[in-house]
Amino acid sequence: MISGSPLLTDLYQLTMLQAYFAHGMRGTAVFEFFVRKLPPHRNFMMVAGLEQVLDYLEDLRFGSGDLEWLAKSGRFSPAFLDQLASLRFTGDVHAMPEGTIFFPDEPVLRVTAPLPEAQLVESRIINLLQYQTLVATKAARSVLVAPGKLLVDFGFRRAHGAEAGLLAARAAYIAGYAGTATVLAGAEFGIPLYGTMAHSYVQAHDDESAAFRDFARLYPGATVLLVDTYDTLAAVRKVAALAHELKREGMAIRGVRLDSGDLAALAKGARKILDDAGLTEVTIFASGNLDEYRLAELSAAGAPIDGFGVGTSLVTSSDAPYLDAVYKLQEYAGRPRLKRSPGKATWPGRKQVHRQTDAEGRLLRDVVSLESDAQSGVPLVVPVMKGGKRLHPPESLEALRARAASQLRALPQRLAALEVAAEPYEVDIAPKLRELARV
Amino acid sequence: MISGSPLLTDLYQLTMLQAYFAHGMRGTAVFEFFVRKLPPHRNFMMVAGLEQVLDYLEDLRFGSGDLEWLAKSGRFSPAFLDQLASLRFTGDVHAMPEGTIFFPDEPVLRVTAPLPEAQLVESRIINLLQYQTLVATKAARSVLVAPGKLLVDFGFRRAHGAEAGLLAARAAYIAGYAGTATVLAGAEFGIPLYGTMAHSYVQAHDDESAAFRDFARLYPGATVLLVDTYDTLAAVRKVAALAHELKREGMAIRGVRLDSGDLAALAKGARKILDDAGLTEVTIFASGNLDEYRLAELSAAGAPIDGFGVGTSLVTSSDAPYLDAVYKLQEYAGRPRLKRSPGKATWPGRKQVHRQTDAEGRLLRDVVSLESDAQSGVPLVVPVMKGGKRLHPPESLEALRARAASQLRALPQRLAALEVAAEPYEVDIAPKLRELARV
Repeated sequence: MISGSPLLTDLYQLTMLQAYFAHGMRGTAVFEFFVRKLPPHRNFMMVAGLEQVLDYLEDLRFGSGDLEWLAKSGRFSPAFLDQLASLRFTGDVHAMPEGTIFFPDEPVLRVTAPLPEAQLVESRIINLLQYQTLVATKAARSVLVAPGKLLVDFGFRRAHGAEAGLLAARAAYIAGYAGTATVLAGAEFGIPLYGTMAHSYVQAHDDESAAFRDFARLYPGATVLLVDTYDTLAAVRKVAALAHELKREGMAIRGVRLDSGDLAALAKGARKILDDAGLTEVTIFASGNLDEYRLAELSAAGAPIDGFGVGTSLVTSSDAPYLDAVYKLQEYAGRPRLKRSPGKATWPGRKQVHRQTDAEGRLLRDVVSLESDAQSGVPLVVPVMKGGKRLHPPESLEALRARAASQLRALPQRLAALEVAAEPYEVDIAPKLRELARV
Repeated sequence: MISGSPLLTDLYQLTMLQAYFAHGMRGTAVFEFFVRKLPPHRNFMMVAGLEQVLDYLEDLRFGSGDLEWLAKSGRFSPAFLDQLASLRFTGDVHAMPEGTIFFPDEPVLRVTAPLPEAQLVESRIINLLQYQTLVATKAARSVLVAPGKLLVDFGFRRAHGAEAGLLAARAAYIAGYAGTATVLAGAEFGIPLYGTMAHSYVQAHDDESAAFRDFARLYPGATVLLVDTYDTLAAVRKVAALAHELKREGMAIRGVRLDSGDLAALAKGARKILDDAGLTEVTIFASGNLDEYRLAELSAAGAPIDGFGVGTSLVTSSDAPYLDAVYKLQEYAGRPRLKRSPGKATWPGRKQVHRQTDAEGRLLRDVVSLESDAQSGVPLVVPVMKGGKRLHPPESLEALRARAASQLRALPQRLAALEVAAEPYEVDIAPKLRELARV
């Protein structure tokens, strides 16, 4: 389902490749993926998407259909197309593991490969890493403000296409969401699925109580009933009556879902109705234009809500829908390479990030240095692919979730807040790297 | 490449389907897709994505792998899975043709089908229509402020996944962009491809002039050289010298590309260098964090720029990354259906939009009415699918571009501006529809 087409690239990558081949420029190139600055409202970012990058690199090859189309386009010589036909990714990859928290100017992924291979993969590597990292970062903010709540990705319909929907479900799950409503994300990645019912289901019935009863009997113990189609609290009373009716038959209703109106007030009203009816085990789930700011407000208002469906804001990262993520040449044929474009200058060479923590394991300070210039602290960038082959089997999503949770626990309080910290996290550039950039 | 998986849906669609089948609820349902309100900064929207919706509906079927996975999930009965196995979309679709300008509360697409079929397809229909409409709407704004300029989609790397990159290229092309850099969008849709070179190409060479010369000789007449890697105007002088050298051999350079710095000042400086060298035919192309606001500024500053590469802002619709787009049940089993959730109430019944224009063909006023309640003006919603089969072959992208261009020409001046019009476009709800909603 996640596309591996080699034509998922920009035209200039292919025209540059033809030039590299024509002029024998096949020396070793080092490219690094990093983010130039924090997106608005963010204190940190969380890496996600590495697994899909490694899949792409391992499977990269031009099929006969791709080559025929390129030949017909009239831009490429038969000699070049022969070279493309046998092109495979044979390079090395170093990266921060998924779920790692990182900051601007830190190399998240490094590709070391013959120049044409390293160049060709730029577009898709950015495309895959940028988006999942964006969503994991957004999701982590909800996880931080709603500890202990069941958070579910409801965003597929407003995601930017199918792949975005799937990758968003994965990134949110890594960051700490409990699951997704997107069925294909369950099938592809094994992410737990959640779902309730739609207004159309209630509307298609002539009677709301009958709609509830039919559904609850079909899914005993697993039913979350949508109560806001007509009159929310009246519907909750119907649910309470139904719950008692079903209880006599040994069946239970799991919860009710609010999807509009004043969620805090309705949740309190619904909770009272349910509690008064002795239904303390029936949960309240809320959805409808939610994001981490609304979650924080609802928490501050003491709304008795047990879980949230978060959709559009999550999958589009609506307050910051992109990262200033780039993949830049840092070294070619053994020499560091610099770029001096105003506002876009880069730190040259192969780099490492060392993270220093305090006695409780909280993040203190990162140092970005040349790989050869070891610093104190834990190095974050590790080898993941050698000669075009993965060094390890894919990590399980559960392992990634555990890493993400541990990273979030290690955030200093000021960085865990929704507001931008007055004192940003300290990322130092080591002296030798500064010196190299001045040359 | 555009996924047709039937599992691209929300879990609740499948659990509702099982309930519909269990209770014999297979009557005719009418759902309409519409947008509840204009996104920020917008005066209109432009429809795109219908073709992919029709492909999806025609091809919809559950394969054995899908059914096996659903069976293993433990939520569905064998009887229901048998029904899913034979499920096809057998309904009718009415829609506004792609490239049509539309406004909130107007039905853009209507599905009339047995309830389970019409329900199942909700998630993917919204997913496909929402995103392309979002991008076409964003792209149209650049087209309006940069008439006569070559506009190219450079956004793949920051698009939300592969499908977003492809669909964005298509939507932008419909709205009036000249083409895209995304190779697979050329291969899939026949969209013209454009490309220049990357900074890494220049950096990998020891000498900028040599980098330019190699590329220009390989692509005579088609080369656009990136001049901002080190010192922009110095690089333009190198291009001028190279252009003369190549001219003697009968070769030409097409243009230079600016990607950073003060684009207006650099374009003026570059234009002067090129003109002084007698290279008036060499064009100037600009890119780098552009959007329609920057295009308008550059135009106001008199920047002599011939074309623009627009990336991130286009494919993420960065200032409005989603539409409040929904797909709502309007009628079931012959009866109009209403929803009363606060802020989310809907106009019931099967609806049509009639557009009234002035003597010059400019948009004057739209009327939303029940389909049976004809109004003056041109009806915008037309039949496109009957009994699950397309009524016409797909329209060519050129035809869609022509429609979009004609629609943009028909916009009143106030709606063609980047700022929100003081007087919004008039969309009236016909009296009989208001009356039905009051019932």
